[in-house]
Amino acid sequence: MNSLINGRPSEQIRADDRGLAYGDGLFETIEVDQGRLVYWQRHLDRLTNGCSRLSIPIPDRSQLLAEAKQLLQANNSGVLKITITRGTGGRGYSHPNPSLPTRLITFHAQPDYPPAYQTQGVCLKVCSSRLGINPQLAGLKHLNRLEQVIARAELDSPKQQEGLMLDYEGHPVEGIMSNLFWVSSGEIFTPDLGLCGVSGVIREIVIELAEKSGIPCRIGRFTIDHLLASDEVFVTNSLIGIWPVHDLDDHLFSIGEVTLFLLKQLNKDKKKNLEIANEK
Amino acid sequence: MNSLINGRPSEQIRADDRGLAYGDGLFETIEVDQGRLVYWQRHLDRLTNGCSRLSIPIPDRSQLLAEAKQLLQANNSGVLKITITRGTGGRGYSHPNPSLPTRLITFHAQPDYPPAYQTQGVCLKVCSSRLGINPQLAGLKHLNRLEQVIARAELDSPKQQEGLMLDYEGHPVEGIMSNLFWVSSGEIFTPDLGLCGVSGVIREIVIELAEKSGIPCRIGRFTIDHLLASDEVFVTNSLIGIWPVHDLDDHLFSIGEVTLFLLKQLNKDKKKNLEIANEK
Repeated sequence: MNSLINGRPSEQIRADDRGLAYGDGLFETIEVDQGRLVYWQRHLDRLTNGCSRLSIPIPDRSQLLAEAKQLLQANNSGVLKITITRGTGGRGYSHPNPSLPTRLITFHAQPDYPPAYQTQGVCLKVCSSRLGINPQLAGLKHLNRLEQVIARAELDSPKQQEGLMLDYEGHPVEGIMSNLFWVSSGEIFTPDLGLCGVSGVIREIVIELAEKSGIPCRIGRFTIDHLLASDEVFVTNSLIGIWPVHDLDDHLFSIGEVTLFLLKQLNKDKKKNLEIANEK
Repeated sequence: MNSLINGRPSEQIRADDRGLAYGDGLFETIEVDQGRLVYWQRHLDRLTNGCSRLSIPIPDRSQLLAEAKQLLQANNSGVLKITITRGTGGRGYSHPNPSLPTRLITFHAQPDYPPAYQTQGVCLKVCSSRLGINPQLAGLKHLNRLEQVIARAELDSPKQQEGLMLDYEGHPVEGIMSNLFWVSSGEIFTPDLGLCGVSGVIREIVIELAEKSGIPCRIGRFTIDHLLASDEVFVTNSLIGIWPVHDLDDHLFSIGEVTLFLLKQLNKDKKKNLEIANEK
């Protein structure tokens, strides 16, 4: 059994669910390492914050954990995905009253990324499709992801592992499925996500790890030229951890010591957060 | 029976449908008047164009019509909704290969709008939430509709029947569920939808009817001040037809002769397009 819908084994949702009609919901993608949920609390914090911002009733954490554990009984390592929608409703944009959210928890195989992506780096293409600017949706991992679907279709060579997305005004924001960092003169830089983009769990952790290690981290709105002139570039998400970038539209970067240091710190931190998740 | 999924009576879709995961699809909302589909060909033209822009395989029109008629056997007047998604797929933004679209056709009751909305006009609120700018998605009636869900929640008084949405840069674009027109010195104005907004079937017809009647129609990017200084304002969609606007954030408008003329023309034109739809 690989999916639970509102606590019951099922592979079908109601056709009048607002997740389908309007993308009216949120999701989390959580690494499962030998039966343990990596950064569980962080993911649930983000989900809670997202529900709160969209006025979707906040799901019960202990119920979600119990259901996640139920799926993990039959599955050891892979990916747990949690989708929360505003629930079913009639035609029309008004919130149903009351909203009874739909809770969809599914288990998936680990993506089969070659280990070389982490050791030798990946190749990024700058996508021509851009991210619309909308502060009310910025940061959220919501279900309106057509921009990412369109951008992903731009990757036309197996040599490109990820795409870099700029906002409507041309500022670099993130990867299609990852967040973006670069290193310049010993400082790390990452785009602010107040106008668009998804605020990733690993992004947040990398910022904290940098700060703890005394590496200055600047969050702001930067130019593509600033990024291209940098010393190291890397992307992050919950399943890849950190991927160094060795090639960005034929600009070559070395895999530098700051990236490797943060990768090491992240792998250490993950192990701590496995333990914590496991105790719950 | 009120819904068909891929031709079969069902009220459930697969939980791994990309319509749910990413809003990766499109929809049409079609008026059904005494068993007849209003502007069927126009709706199908838009759906076809939308699928083509999103690289979703184009559904077969005769199959959609046969399925629509099957639902109409038990339902006389109301709303037919067609949703087409890219189909099921694994985790991740890449298009499934091949994509086997999901076809969801549902029948809904007519919304119970008081006739006075058409004769005496409606009240609009200018929403504070805005539309992100994305030319690649602009015009499409796609399933990424969180902006509309958020805007709809801003209507906090039963006196407000619709919300006016501005784009990120402050230009008026459309209503939450409708398109927007205004009349100034005998010309009609409607926002260009090349940057954001949904290109409505009735909007297109009203533009054509105005042109046929020798009323100049200007499509462009205008300011809110231009709109507020106008003589008449109205909104359009497939279920409301034309609603004159009498109040826009306490700016009062009269229900003028251009609006009433176009309403009359639209009602005539609808009847012609009922006949055509019925013959197919």
